[in-house]
Amino acid sequence: MISVEEYQQVVLSQVRPLAPQRVPLTAAHGLRLAEDLTATLAVPPFDNSAMDGFALRAADVVGAGEATPRVLPVTADLPAGTTTVPDLPPGGAARIMTGAPLPPGADTIVPVERTDQPMGATELPASVAIHVAAQPGAHVRRRGEDIEPGDPVLAAGTVLGGAQLASAASAGHGELLVHPRPRVGVLATGDELVAPGTVPGNGQIPDSNSVLLAGLVREAGGEPVLLGAVPDDPARLLDVVTGALADLDALVTSGGVSVGTRDVVKAAFEDQLHFTTVAMQPGKPQGFGVLAGRVPVFALPGNPVSVLVSFHVHVVPALRRLLGRTELRPLERATAAVDWRCPPGRRQYLPALVDETGGPLPLVRPSAAGGSGSHLVASLAAAQALAVVPAEVDAVTAGDEVGLLRW
Amino acid sequence: MISVEEYQQVVLSQVRPLAPQRVPLTAAHGLRLAEDLTATLAVPPFDNSAMDGFALRAADVVGAGEATPRVLPVTADLPAGTTTVPDLPPGGAARIMTGAPLPPGADTIVPVERTDQPMGATELPASVAIHVAAQPGAHVRRRGEDIEPGDPVLAAGTVLGGAQLASAASAGHGELLVHPRPRVGVLATGDELVAPGTVPGNGQIPDSNSVLLAGLVREAGGEPVLLGAVPDDPARLLDVVTGALADLDALVTSGGVSVGTRDVVKAAFEDQLHFTTVAMQPGKPQGFGVLAGRVPVFALPGNPVSVLVSFHVHVVPALRRLLGRTELRPLERATAAVDWRCPPGRRQYLPALVDETGGPLPLVRPSAAGGSGSHLVASLAAAQALAVVPAEVDAVTAGDEVGLLRW
Repeated sequence: MISVEEYQQVVLSQVRPLAPQRVPLTAAHGLRLAEDLTATLAVPPFDNSAMDGFALRAADVVGAGEATPRVLPVTADLPAGTTTVPDLPPGGAARIMTGAPLPPGADTIVPVERTDQPMGATELPASVAIHVAAQPGAHVRRRGEDIEPGDPVLAAGTVLGGAQLASAASAGHGELLVHPRPRVGVLATGDELVAPGTVPGNGQIPDSNSVLLAGLVREAGGEPVLLGAVPDDPARLLDVVTGALADLDALVTSGGVSVGTRDVVKAAFEDQLHFTTVAMQPGKPQGFGVLAGRVPVFALPGNPVSVLVSFHVHVVPALRRLLGRTELRPLERATAAVDWRCPPGRRQYLPALVDETGGPLPLVRPSAAGGSGSHLVASLAAAQALAVVPAEVDAVTAGDEVGLLRW
Repeated sequence: MISVEEYQQVVLSQVRPLAPQRVPLTAAHGLRLAEDLTATLAVPPFDNSAMDGFALRAADVVGAGEATPRVLPVTADLPAGTTTVPDLPPGGAARIMTGAPLPPGADTIVPVERTDQPMGATELPASVAIHVAAQPGAHVRRRGEDIEPGDPVLAAGTVLGGAQLASAASAGHGELLVHPRPRVGVLATGDELVAPGTVPGNGQIPDSNSVLLAGLVREAGGEPVLLGAVPDDPARLLDVVTGALADLDALVTSGGVSVGTRDVVKAAFEDQLHFTTVAMQPGKPQGFGVLAGRVPVFALPGNPVSVLVSFHVHVVPALRRLLGRTELRPLERATAAVDWRCPPGRRQYLPALVDETGGPLPLVRPSAAGGSGSHLVASLAAAQALAVVPAEVDAVTAGDEVGLLRW
């Protein structure tokens, strides 16, 4: 048996980040930016109006008020999107909508509410009575007042949500260099597996591991590619994997890696993957290797709790590496809320419930009332994290400090 | 002007949850379960072996040990997935793999490591030497020991991740009744808009609002349907909306709802939506209505900060309602880290940075150095929440308590 750290090192030393890809903004949502982004456009890109109203020279309405309106001739009509903007003649006013370019010569905007004009769609008037004195620059958005070309917009590593993507769009970008979502093949092995929802015959069970793995891949930022349940036939398994490999960035299998007579993953890949035992419980038998010089393959044990634990301990760090992240998720500290037993000589990863409400550290307890029995698939649904207990500890007592690995 | 609460009430009173849909497990990831789920299968569905080894009667190996092996004839070979299982004759042993059905008559499993047999793929031996005494029931998983048919598995409202979906599969389900993701059309209006990445001409700007809305819809649990940027032409807008409506559960537009001469959404939908002003800043002009008796339509103002704020204040609660959630997101409490000014008579929603590290309440400060100017699209990327200040407050002083709306 090798230690968890040694095995993680074996895995991570063979996993390289995927090449960043340039994708349209709409395809970048939820991904991480792979470069520092600077503006190629000014924001706003030209001087424009912040209000619906009239563009004019402040000097032309000095002393204007409700009782002392200044009447100016209306010389232009400037809706947003107008691309040819005539100069504003001295003493004139241009009707202007929010976002339209400020006409050269104008230095202020008077909102329509402060004139004699009605709001809404109306004919262009010949003149407008201005009911307020205007400050130069009022309601004018100056070119580049938010961002100038070359200014930083988003830092490499930013997770791209709607707001970040909108900022990138405003700053001139239509595509972004991102860390792409790894395409991760998932398959379960075993003659006993039937599709979920099918009534299993005697000796058969639903293939819950494919469903579990697909979900875990998605939760870890990957795109699952379902390869289905494969029977215990090495030639068939090789066919399925070989046929899918070109489309995959990684592959995760469940089952067929232990000491049985028909352990199909071991049989099919004995020359291509390295099978070993890791000092952890559950999840002792593990296989790993890189196929086609490019695709990391994780051959996990078959029982669902082992799959869950192996995925979080071995596959998640590798998927993070594929996604361009270098830091490992740190183990948090927690306090055991109850007693439980631990396997001798193996680090325990126990599906756990987490209670944040009391004390300086979160309290954890096993999510399965019956203990850590790895067949308790239905109790998996309740687990919120893994409690982590060192290999040299034989029993945990309420109040002991333990590790906590959240997902 | 009406209050934010009155307007939210107007909106929510006209939005009904979408009908739950039954979807395959793989399509249910990330959705909420719409019914309490009980098991239709036992877990495990039959008595089976937890180890690779030999099934036998414990009584037949009493006193066995390394030095005193008991040799039993091997009467059957039971791989996982085997569907016909012969009775175990008294005094015999059946080779059995993990997950295979326990043969009638056997009451215990001896792992292969505790026998004279090698691990891995080997011929079926004629006999096996057992090197340990066995406890009845050891390494046997009993039918239903995790879950019996009829037992509860998942509660209505559970968000379905990989572990929950795997539990549903194991408990017999291939499809689940879920609250479907609303399909939400998004479109931006304005003659000035060009596609992101296109070099805008004079007077033109990139359509960042479509990108923003698509991302916000996704973050709120909806599926965005991009309808593009529509020019300020009411007939064209009506065409686009009419053509898309059958495919939508909701629609969000930006721009064209204010007091300008070409406010296209107002012009196109003046008979079908209700346009009003809400006592909030930004986001005062708002339009809302239900098209085709079914599709709620949110006509938001056009500037990006107004879009962001209006979306979180008005659209998110409605999308939650479509998703079958009835509770409103509570406003949290926070402390202002700096001073800022507030608009008179309107509730302020200020894009903010949140600092959790000090004090009993999170500290908030404006995310835009320049204040709450609603054109500061690039500063949106930094905002982590909205600080919320009551309408009657004119100025916030560092240390004041304010509201906090996170996303």
